[in-house]
Formats: sequence, C-alpha cells, structure tokens
Amino acid sequence: MTTQDIGIESFHYYWNNEHKPLVHIKSGDKVHFEVNEVSSWQITKNAKREALVNLDSKKFYPLSGPVYVEGASEGDTLLIEVEEVKTADWGWSSIVSGLGLLPEFSDPYLWIWDLSKQEKSVEFKNGIKVPLAPFCGVMGVAPKEKGSFDVMPPGKHGGNMDIKHLTAGSKLFLPVWTEGALFSVGDIHAAMGDGEVCVTAIECPGEVSLKFELIKDARISSPRFITSKEIVPNLGPCVVTTGIAPDLMEACRLATRNMIDYLVRNHGLDRNEAYILCSVAADLKVHEVVDAPNWVVGLWIEESVLGKK
Amino acid sequence: MTTQDIGIESFHYYWNNEHKPLVHIKSGDKVHFEVNEVSSWQITKNAKREALVNLDSKKFYPLSGPVYVEGASEGDTLLIEVEEVKTADWGWSSIVSGLGLLPEFSDPYLWIWDLSKQEKSVEFKNGIKVPLAPFCGVMGVAPKEKGSFDVMPPGKHGGNMDIKHLTAGSKLFLPVWTEGALFSVGDIHAAMGDGEVCVTAIECPGEVSLKFELIKDARISSPRFITSKEIVPNLGPCVVTTGIAPDLMEACRLATRNMIDYLVRNHGLDRNEAYILCSVAADLKVHEVVDAPNWVVGLWIEESVLGKK
Repeated sequence: MTTQDIGIESFHYYWNNEHKPLVHIKSGDKVHFEVNEVSSWQITKNAKREALVNLDSKKFYPLSGPVYVEGASEGDTLLIEVEEVKTADWGWSSIVSGLGLLPEFSDPYLWIWDLSKQEKSVEFKNGIKVPLAPFCGVMGVAPKEKGSFDVMPPGKHGGNMDIKHLTAGSKLFLPVWTEGALFSVGDIHAAMGDGEVCVTAIECPGEVSLKFELIKDARISSPRFITSKEIVPNLGPCVVTTGIAPDLMEACRLATRNMIDYLVRNHGLDRNEAYILCSVAADLKVHEVVDAPNWVVGLWIEESVLGKK
Repeated sequence: MTTQDIGIESFHYYWNNEHKPLVHIKSGDKVHFEVNEVSSWQITKNAKREALVNLDSKKFYPLSGPVYVEGASEGDTLLIEVEEVKTADWGWSSIVSGLGLLPEFSDPYLWIWDLSKQEKSVEFKNGIKVPLAPFCGVMGVAPKEKGSFDVMPPGKHGGNMDIKHLTAGSKLFLPVWTEGALFSVGDIHAAMGDGEVCVTAIECPGEVSLKFELIKDARISSPRFITSKEIVPNLGPCVVTTGIAPDLMEACRLATRNMIDYLVRNHGLDRNEAYILCSVAADLKVHEVVDAPNWVVGLWIEESVLGKK
C-alpha cells in the first residue's frame, strides 16, 4: 500500500476520459489531494459582493486528478473510503442570480465564514450556529462517452452529487465506465443541508485523503454509499416546514419558502440570510410520493442550530 | 382541561366542512380516538392475498372525528401535540396494482405483521427487523372549499401527509380553514419509511391521544411540525442507493429500484419483499436540487435493520 500526492497546482475542468492521469495507483492505495476552491479563487477570504458580479463560470469546479486505478475497466466498482477532509480557515456562501431553487432571489449576495477557530460549528448570527462536517461535493470517475462534459450536473459517473453525508469514515461506491476509472475530486464543503437549496454550501479550499479499492465486475448502475458511524449527528428536535404539491420540485420550493418565512419571523434573519442558512444547515426529505396527486416534502432544521429565540 | 373520547363506531370518509362534529373542545383539551384500520377492516389479521383483489376503495381512510375547536376560524393555527399512538397486535403491508412509486410491480402482494410481542422492532425475514415508531398517516382539518374531498391526497389542510416523524412527543401545526377547524385523524402506521414507496406502511388499527391548542391569527400557509426528542433514533451507519435524473420523481424511482436490487442480491429477499421493506423501513432524502439539469435522491436504510448478511 502506497500513498501518493496531488498538489494544488494540478487540476482540470470538465470530465473527459482522455485526460492524462496524474498518478497511477493499485487497489488498496491511498491518495492525498490538495483541492482548490470551487471558483478557482475568484472568491477569496476578503471578497466583497462585487466579486460575484463578474464570475467566470468556465473557472468553476477545478478538479484534482485524475487518478488511474490499475486494472479498472467498465463494469467494475470503485470503492472510495473517505479518510480525512480538511478545510482552510475560511469559506463562502452566496446567492447567485439564475441559480438555486428559488427564482425570486435575483440579487447577488455573499457571506464569508470564519473557520479559523476550527470548532465543531461556525457562528452565523443571532446565536445561530452551523455544525461543521466537511465533505467533497464532487467525487467521480470519467464518463463512458468521449468528449468534455460539464462538472455541474452529476450522473452515472457520480461527480457533483453534493451528498453531505460523504464525510470522513464514509464509503462511496462508483460504477467504473472507462479503463483506469480516472477518478477526480473537488468542491470541498465545510457544511451543507440536503438539497443545497441556494446553490452554494460553505465553499472552501482544503485537503482530502482517500483510499481506493477496486471491486471487479460488481456491476452497479448508480453510485451507492455507506455513511460513517462517527459523523452522523445525534439528531435533536427539529423544526420542519412542509411543501405539498403535485410536483416534487415545486414541493421543495414551497417547503423552502415556508422555512425562510419561519426564520425571518422567528430568528431575526433577513430573507437572503435565511435562504443561505437553509442551504448550509437544513435538510430536504421526501415524506411521501404515493398519495396522488400531491406529494409531501419537508425541510428540516435542528432546533439546536437555531440557538435561543 | 378535559378529555373526551371518540369510539371506533364513529367515523367518516371524505373531508367536508359540513360534517357534523362529534365533540366540541376548548383550546387545551385532549381527545382520545379509537381509529379503524385504513381499509375499514377489508383486510384482517388472517387475510390472504385474495383479499386485495376486490378491495372497495370507497371504504379507504375511515377517519375518526371531526373535532370542533371552539373559537377556531380561518387564519388561526391548530397545534396538535401527539401524546400517544398505540397499534393493535397486528398490521399489514401490500403491493397494490396501479398504486405506489414503481409501475412495474403489478401483482397484488400481502404481508401480515405480528405485532403481539410489542417490542421495539418487528421481524421481517433473514434477520431483518423493522423498528416500530407508530404515528398517524392522516391528521387534518376540514378544507376551506365546500364539498366532499378524497382523503388520499394531502393538501393545505394537512390530511394524508404520511409523515413518519409525527410520533408521540411531536407537535403538528395546521392552518385552520373553517370555523371550528373540524379536525380528524386516521390511518395508524406502526412503521414507515420516508416516501412510503410501495403505497402502504405497516397499516394498523389502534388508539391515539392528542392535545389541542389554538393559536389565534398565526397565519401559516402549509403544515409545520417539531419532532419529538425521544423518538428520533440514534442513527447508525446506513446503506444508501442513489437515483440521479433530471426529474425528482424519476430519481426517487431509480433510487428505489437500486435499493431493491441491493436487497435482493445481498439479503436474500425476493423483489416483492424488498419493495415492501423499502416502503416500511427506508427513507428518501433529496441530496441536491440545484446542480442542473440532474438532481440526486438517496434511499437510506440502516445497516442495523438488515441484521447480519
């Protein structure tokens, strides 16, 4: 078993099964990755709102990799054990016009988080604290098809799945689509709610250590994972708003609007702040998809996050 | 503060704001409800698969109530504190042609659960145990509009929301739409997964004790709830299958199909059994709804439920 390093100067945009591998590994090996901030440092620690206005979206999602896994080929499964995810001492969240779940938020808005205290949570305002549980928004392999593919949409190759539960101690199983698998990683988040409703989590640069195992011919058709024992919090009472509608996406929107209303009324946030808090600390769950024609979605936030009223 | 009783012989089908109230209560009062089984006893403890074939759907959802809350009117909020939910010593789950998330399951299939041991979980097969956490699938108030409305779809009046988290100790806030609120309850479940993918939970007759409080003029536009401290389990490691698709419902279907495949391959279940296990013990979560054009849904099941392989 060996450990190899990929430094911060080596990265690629787009998924492409013809990218040249940076390292070659065997099943059982580990790789330590330095990971760039998701906008390629267009947003920095001291950035102001103006930085959002001229963002170059071609520089989104710099990925660290690819890693060539010897012996991997289509039909195999790549098991990635997340050993450690470390963030830098700051992060950012924003509302970006045209992105996110709620179209009515059209003005750019930026929040910089101070993570220098390295505690288990980070202060927002009015006693609200967001629990920190770092993970990688993007872990994926090269697609089967030739050509360059945007990182934004996730797919059968995994990629930008934004699954907040892929914290240290978790195990991700990805289907392999091309020789060597060509695994890459990026988009470190210090915290996120299921759904990532405003389109950003707490976005950070950082470092990741992953261990890889190749499972030959274990055909799976979509990513699968096993959560960590240590990281899943001992959930306390939660406040939950619902969205009930004949379309699941609309139900997600309604639940989010109702939570924003709740936070503005009861916790002294403005609507932008409330939307960002939903994105980094509240979880979307599907309560029923069978009581036709209306489905029920809930947006969950822990009371302990909200502090005292 | 008084407690009133509603017996098993009193029930109604359909929501209708002209139903005659069975009891009148004041804010702060409690009501103890006996609740019929959801098919009005067309399915019984010793039922066989044949019972599913000629089910009369007009007899679905017998509701206990309505309860008239003095002083309640449109714009108020009714707070329902769930004090106790008790099931009978048996329950049932089924696959019903034409209902449920997956259209490819078209043959009726019935599973009777023995709940007579009154333990914290009920045995399925192959060492699989489903944790029991009883709740009411239906809690609602009369709609604003005149006329009779099917119980099946939930809505702004609450109703058949199938929220598994409304266990003893939880608090449900419902918007009031009509004078007296006209609250009713039904459809007791011993256990259910978020999503209720095969359309049934563990369906049971039983008893419910609820306490009511009226919050004047606290306009909310959709039901909201606060979970119980005691009932939320201390979640252990989970196996999660994903569905990644440009439509959330399709993503739910894919995640469910992938979980069925997983359970069939690894836990010796047939496809019908696996589908039912998903419906009663696995939870749908929305991992992201912003990485256009593909969304990520996960179906979660605790490893501890699955026992040893």
